[in-house]
Amino acid sequence: MASTSGLTIPCKAAVAWEAGKPLVMERVEVAPPQAMEVRMKVKYTSLCHTDLYFWEAKGQNPLFPRIFGHEAAGIVESVGEGVTDLEAGDHVLPVFTGECGECAHCKSEESNMCDLLRIDTNRGVMLSDKKSRFSINGNPINHFLGTSTFSEYTVVHAGCLAKINPLAPLDKVCVLSCGISTGLGATLNVAKPKKGSSVAVFGLGTVGLAAAEGARIAGASRIIGIDLNSSRFEAAKKFGVTEFINPKDYDKPVQEVIAEMTNGGVDRSVECTGNINAMISAFECVHDGWGVAVLVGVPTKDAVFMTKPINVLNERTLKGTFFGNYKPRTDLPSIVDMYMNKKLELEKFLTHRVPFSEINKAFELMLRGEGLRCIIDIDE
Amino acid sequence: MASTSGLTIPCKAAVAWEAGKPLVMERVEVAPPQAMEVRMKVKYTSLCHTDLYFWEAKGQNPLFPRIFGHEAAGIVESVGEGVTDLEAGDHVLPVFTGECGECAHCKSEESNMCDLLRIDTNRGVMLSDKKSRFSINGNPINHFLGTSTFSEYTVVHAGCLAKINPLAPLDKVCVLSCGISTGLGATLNVAKPKKGSSVAVFGLGTVGLAAAEGARIAGASRIIGIDLNSSRFEAAKKFGVTEFINPKDYDKPVQEVIAEMTNGGVDRSVECTGNINAMISAFECVHDGWGVAVLVGVPTKDAVFMTKPINVLNERTLKGTFFGNYKPRTDLPSIVDMYMNKKLELEKFLTHRVPFSEINKAFELMLRGEGLRCIIDIDE
Ligand SMILES: NC(=O)c1ccc[n+]([C@@H]2O[C@H](COP(=O)([O-])OP(=O)(O)OC[C@H]3O[C@@H](n4cnc5c(N)ncnc54)[C@H](O)[C@@H]3O)[C@@H](O)[C@H]2O)c1
Ligand SMILES: NC(=O)c1ccc[n+]([C@@H]2O[C@H](COP(=O)([O-])OP(=O)(O)OC[C@H]3O[C@@H](n4cnc5c(N)ncnc54)[C@H](O)[C@@H]3O)[C@@H](O)[C@H]2O)c1
Ligand SMILES: [Zn+2]
Ligand SMILES: [Zn+2]
Ligand SMILES: [Zn+2]
Ligand SMILES: [Zn+2]
Repeated sequence: MASTSGLTIPCKAAVAWEAGKPLVMERVEVAPPQAMEVRMKVKYTSLCHTDLYFWEAKGQNPLFPRIFGHEAAGIVESVGEGVTDLEAGDHVLPVFTGECGECAHCKSEESNMCDLLRIDTNRGVMLSDKKSRFSINGNPINHFLGTSTFSEYTVVHAGCLAKINPLAPLDKVCVLSCGISTGLGATLNVAKPKKGSSVAVFGLGTVGLAAAEGARIAGASRIIGIDLNSSRFEAAKKFGVTEFINPKDYDKPVQEVIAEMTNGGVDRSVECTGNINAMISAFECVHDGWGVAVLVGVPTKDAVFMTKPINVLNERTLKGTFFGNYKPRTDLPSIVDMYMNKKLELEKFLTHRVPFSEINKAFELMLRGEGLRCIIDIDE
Repeated sequence: MASTSGLTIPCKAAVAWEAGKPLVMERVEVAPPQAMEVRMKVKYTSLCHTDLYFWEAKGQNPLFPRIFGHEAAGIVESVGEGVTDLEAGDHVLPVFTGECGECAHCKSEESNMCDLLRIDTNRGVMLSDKKSRFSINGNPINHFLGTSTFSEYTVVHAGCLAKINPLAPLDKVCVLSCGISTGLGATLNVAKPKKGSSVAVFGLGTVGLAAAEGARIAGASRIIGIDLNSSRFEAAKKFGVTEFINPKDYDKPVQEVIAEMTNGGVDRSVECTGNINAMISAFECVHDGWGVAVLVGVPTKDAVFMTKPINVLNERTLKGTFFGNYKPRTDLPSIVDMYMNKKLELEKFLTHRVPFSEINKAFELMLRGEGLRCIIDIDE
């Protein structure tokens, strides 16, 4: 591998030329990593809703041509100046948010919202020189979330790479880069349900099911899944969900339905829908005195969270989380180990698999709402 | 003292016959305590805004004639059937909320919102037989908050009495029954600022100053006081407040002023105003990543708390508290000890003192917004 170090690497990438149009397999050139950057060989990637949203670019800032992709796993090819804790051959997970180690957030025990490397969906270039490392015939192609994993090789800031156990199967742990860690951490790090407690999970997509998986791991005795789409219920049983509610089946607010089922409210709730009504219900459905509600979903720009202050004064807690409060470099290795120790079950999230050449199939599956995660095998 | 046990006690009480009209000193009869009740000799009481609100009865349910008063200290005269942990001669603080010891809230480590003895401002009778223990010529007089301390003797549910160190001066610790413990606990038990951190306190009345006192005790290095009334600022210095903001002095929201002063926001905030705008500002002024805002103030009925969900998602926490999360019987003795150990300074809250016969002066002081706590000496 060292042979390519310092050189531009020509390789295959799936380029989005236009909003909503199928990706096109192209030959791109990937420049060497600059200071504090790492070039990695992507081995497996998967598709997350965030890729889809920015590819559709309805409402989001359109930035094309662009190489999407942020849930992935790979191997370090070479490192730029100043990178001391990673070397060629290391197994890594790239993450859409980073950990510089120096800012107030990185130094705080509570926050993972690094000032330097926090998510920036509008940036299509590298931080250091505001340039892209991808080009086709000398024309730059935009990066996405600092990861751009729909490519055989990509360049990532060293602060956005978690070095993991080299024995971990990359075609499984690649999904820990985003949605699953987000939901899992929302429950384990933020909601922190006690053994035997009740947990409501709003939204049974990948993030919500990972939140349910967190509740199962924490030993919750009741895990109530809430979704507007009843077809989500069957699959949710595998994730420890014990009871289901479709708010459409009731003519009263779902928080009242939950309060009646649970003698006043659940101990914890985790909202994974992005819908503002679900956020309000998730807050109001927790028990007074000790209930904690955690918001995860990303809402529309003009949404407003509203509740009567008495709901707060009655000793309820409202929290929000970003990437499940995990610090990417510090904490991801231990989530990989949770999987290796069979505490965390990842296989049940992996419903589809396609070779890189068929990446557009992964988009079609997600658009049809089929399955959870589709693994894209970059080398196949 | 044992001589009065089991008998009706005739004594002096300050009776409110009509909303907003001066209290009248009357001879009332106080019946013996029933099962799980205690009759106590009130030694000192003070006036809190809640007394004033229900006496004014603007908006509140008018319930007259009534004996107000809930911040107080006294000595047990006799106990009813089943009361095993209190006896005649014990020094006690009555509290407007209780601790039955048996309900889910009392059993939870996190909650103090006892199902049985939670505050009920509309109740004018005792829980057991729905009757009053006060009468004048056989006509019942309403209780208030289960305490009614504007009387030489009163009957209180045993679950609403904290037994305290008999060496504690009752004319000082009587104020721990309500507002001061509420503010102090909001900071120490709920906001939990770390040593060296920054704390914003909204509202510099007794509750807010007690919250500031909590921040001082916790070792906060910056305590920012916010009040619409600049005359509150001078007194606040004694409570550790280091900086002042009057929102009226700025043409932008106070949360922005605070963010600029603190490089992004304070570590903790405690809202002690009851004003919905202050509640929203208190939430939005805490730092993303780790900030915690605590609501204490009691808002108007139709107030709605509103914020953009991104303010939550950026890892801010919103909490509410009732009586500073103190469990009255379990925790009040240790607050009294904090005072006895000179950790907590109570004297600076005690700005006025009147004999029982001049109790209406305490109302006048509060209506004029003068001072903090006025001690009413029942036996003088
Ligand atoms: N905070 C973070 O770090 C982070 C990271 C990744 C994803 N997310 C967000 O998490 C959310 C969930 O992601 P996902 O990939 O699981 O999405 P998804 O679309 O697969 O699942 C969302 C589910 O919520 C359901 N839903 C929508 N409105 C609802 C309502 N009012 N009540 C009940 N159910 C409702 C939908 O039917 C769907 O099943 C999204 O908003 C996503 O942007 C956040
Ligand atoms: N939760 C509880 O258990 C509990 C117990 C006691 C009191 N309280 C509540 O605490 C609150 C404070 O009580 P207090 O006795 O200190 O009242 P207070 O009236 O003495 O003080 C309130 C202060 O808030 C200021 N204020 C009002 N609106 C403001 C705004 N928008 N911005 C900044 N300052 C503002 C006022 O000028 C005043 O100085 C009240 O709402 C009271 O009902 C709650
Ligand atoms: Zn950082
Ligand atoms: Zn994602
Ligand atoms: Zn109780
Ligand atoms: Zn009070």
